[in-house]
Amino acid sequence: MTVVGVIGGGQLARMMIPAAIDLGIELRVFAEAENSSARIAATVVGDYTDSDQVLAFARSVDVVTFDHEHVPLDNLDLVVSEGIAVFPPPEALALTQDKTMMRAGLAGLAIPQPRWTVAEEESPDAPDLVGGFPCIAKLPVGGYDGKGVRIIHSWNDVRDWLAAGPVLLEELVSFRRELSQLSARRPSGDWSSWPVVETRQDGGVCSVVISPAPGIAQGQSAEAEEIAQRIATECNVVGVLAVEMFEDHDGRILVNELAMRPHNSGHVLTEQSVTSQFEQHLRAVTDMPLGSTALRQSSGVMANIFGGAPVEKWAAMSEQFPEVKFHSYQKTFRPGRKAGHLVVTGENPTELSAVAEKARDIFKGGEPWE
Amino acid sequence: MTVVGVIGGGQLARMMIPAAIDLGIELRVFAEAENSSARIAATVVGDYTDSDQVLAFARSVDVVTFDHEHVPLDNLDLVVSEGIAVFPPPEALALTQDKTMMRAGLAGLAIPQPRWTVAEEESPDAPDLVGGFPCIAKLPVGGYDGKGVRIIHSWNDVRDWLAAGPVLLEELVSFRRELSQLSARRPSGDWSSWPVVETRQDGGVCSVVISPAPGIAQGQSAEAEEIAQRIATECNVVGVLAVEMFEDHDGRILVNELAMRPHNSGHVLTEQSVTSQFEQHLRAVTDMPLGSTALRQSSGVMANIFGGAPVEKWAAMSEQFPEVKFHSYQKTFRPGRKAGHLVVTGENPTELSAVAEKARDIFKGGEPWE
Repeated sequence: MTVVGVIGGGQLARMMIPAAIDLGIELRVFAEAENSSARIAATVVGDYTDSDQVLAFARSVDVVTFDHEHVPLDNLDLVVSEGIAVFPPPEALALTQDKTMMRAGLAGLAIPQPRWTVAEEESPDAPDLVGGFPCIAKLPVGGYDGKGVRIIHSWNDVRDWLAAGPVLLEELVSFRRELSQLSARRPSGDWSSWPVVETRQDGGVCSVVISPAPGIAQGQSAEAEEIAQRIATECNVVGVLAVEMFEDHDGRILVNELAMRPHNSGHVLTEQSVTSQFEQHLRAVTDMPLGSTALRQSSGVMANIFGGAPVEKWAAMSEQFPEVKFHSYQKTFRPGRKAGHLVVTGENPTELSAVAEKARDIFKGGEPWE
Repeated sequence: MTVVGVIGGGQLARMMIPAAIDLGIELRVFAEAENSSARIAATVVGDYTDSDQVLAFARSVDVVTFDHEHVPLDNLDLVVSEGIAVFPPPEALALTQDKTMMRAGLAGLAIPQPRWTVAEEESPDAPDLVGGFPCIAKLPVGGYDGKGVRIIHSWNDVRDWLAAGPVLLEELVSFRRELSQLSARRPSGDWSSWPVVETRQDGGVCSVVISPAPGIAQGQSAEAEEIAQRIATECNVVGVLAVEMFEDHDGRILVNELAMRPHNSGHVLTEQSVTSQFEQHLRAVTDMPLGSTALRQSSGVMANIFGGAPVEKWAAMSEQFPEVKFHSYQKTFRPGRKAGHLVVTGENPTELSAVAEKARDIFKGGEPWE
């Protein structure tokens, strides 16, 4: 039997557990803390920046995969050098660790993306390369969920970051909406995608996902798929790949971010698709046949719950909306923290969105969850 | 946070784990062996016939529920006497432990059932009370999956059982098909049902389930629901209740068996219904609002896998039938043992049945699973 090791004990590792149970895969989690979201499967609590700890964990499994992209590549190279499979492989994962590498990699594949440059200092030319101020500044390494990303109107807004190192500047795209293309690839090459979804952010954090993206043109969804397939294939991605994209006012698609693991924008698929992204990720990293990505219902909406998701709140929500599925991350309360999510599926995305938002509102202002 | 304790580490406990993960319920399993199907959640390995062990486990949880109905009632009464919730309550569970008690209980509620009597010896009158030989003989206690059940053509066929104690005799019903009505009830009284399903047995063991039962008349499904609701309410069942029934050639419904836990005939609901039987059971025993039992797709078929479900077999199955969902019980190989199940959902039950059977055939003759 295959043993899959997941580094990181967050909600993504947590949600791989049901898929592992279905498939009969033994899942072992390397978690940051005893009280991690994935604690039921956590067999090691340790520090993923420690190469000895990572290597010892890797030796206890058949394949290493991830809940997040923060494991130092040196540690992963060490694991690979022992002949243990790491999926996605470190050279692919590198693109998600360093946004400058990602931009350069996508440029090399001629994938459409916002204009970008790297500023090492307050160079007068740099803003012109991205369409001038205001533009987007990103810390190349370590940002997530809106952290490490700023809209800057002048060099003043980014002087602190520049003092510490190079900053990625990107064109401030005037977009109509944001999209996300989920897909998965096996090491043997098979690749499979779900229909592209629309994501709605709140303060730089994913708030609502509508699946499929309402009213998307066939040409656009074909282009989104083609972009994802090229990235997956050319960069040797193994597992789930999420490509976050802008759809601009001319209908052009530009790649914003990449993630090489199950992604918030794919949570809706657990209810809506024959194969969830978590199951597909486990199938892919164990090089098993990919499952069908057909949709059981033509429309689905996911809404994130922030802060806390205490039991009284989901009871109240469930009383009013018994058709809305609740997913707890079993995390302690912290303002703005993703504490869980809701999914509702059906036929009409507008109605489903209204239901999901109303159901989510019930969680607002809750007591800290313990 | 609610802590639910499940006694028994079989596949039913195993499949409660994903539901507990979704709901943010802490699940603890009292398993028979280290290598149980539910081992990822097993916190205690012990003997459920030992009252001290059961009591110690119960003290570590908020509510006790079950993967099977074999825990001695005395042990459960002891748990209840300490003020710890046991759902279903022992007085309800008693009906599933002793088939004679069940028959008497159903008779008291005037629920339609096959004719029955208890034979303590080779009484000449007994067969007449159940329509004569051949009839069904059942051991009142301890049978499951066709074990402890015989068709007898004369007293000769049951002499060994009679030597040990009373035997339940039941009318050999000439039935058109078998049905199962799944529902769930909260302690506060709310009750909710799924559409009645058709079950097909092979050697007394559930082999295929078609949901909903094809071509069922509205009057019959209403009667099946009404029977289940009366049993749940009058017997104070809490959690999932499965009522297995015969549909005879006149369209009459007769109750065959009861189970007060998630049941093989409800596995198809995990894919097909908004709320799985496992999630509904956890909602019910923690007295939370019941989820919607609406169906996401109009038809679903489940097929059990017997013997073993090795990874090579499900890979081969999945290659050919990517739309068929696989559920491993992660059990060691044993001929005839339920090793997992398959589910496929869609619109046409005849086509889905053909797919499920073909997919299941791929598992036949497999090597022992390790």
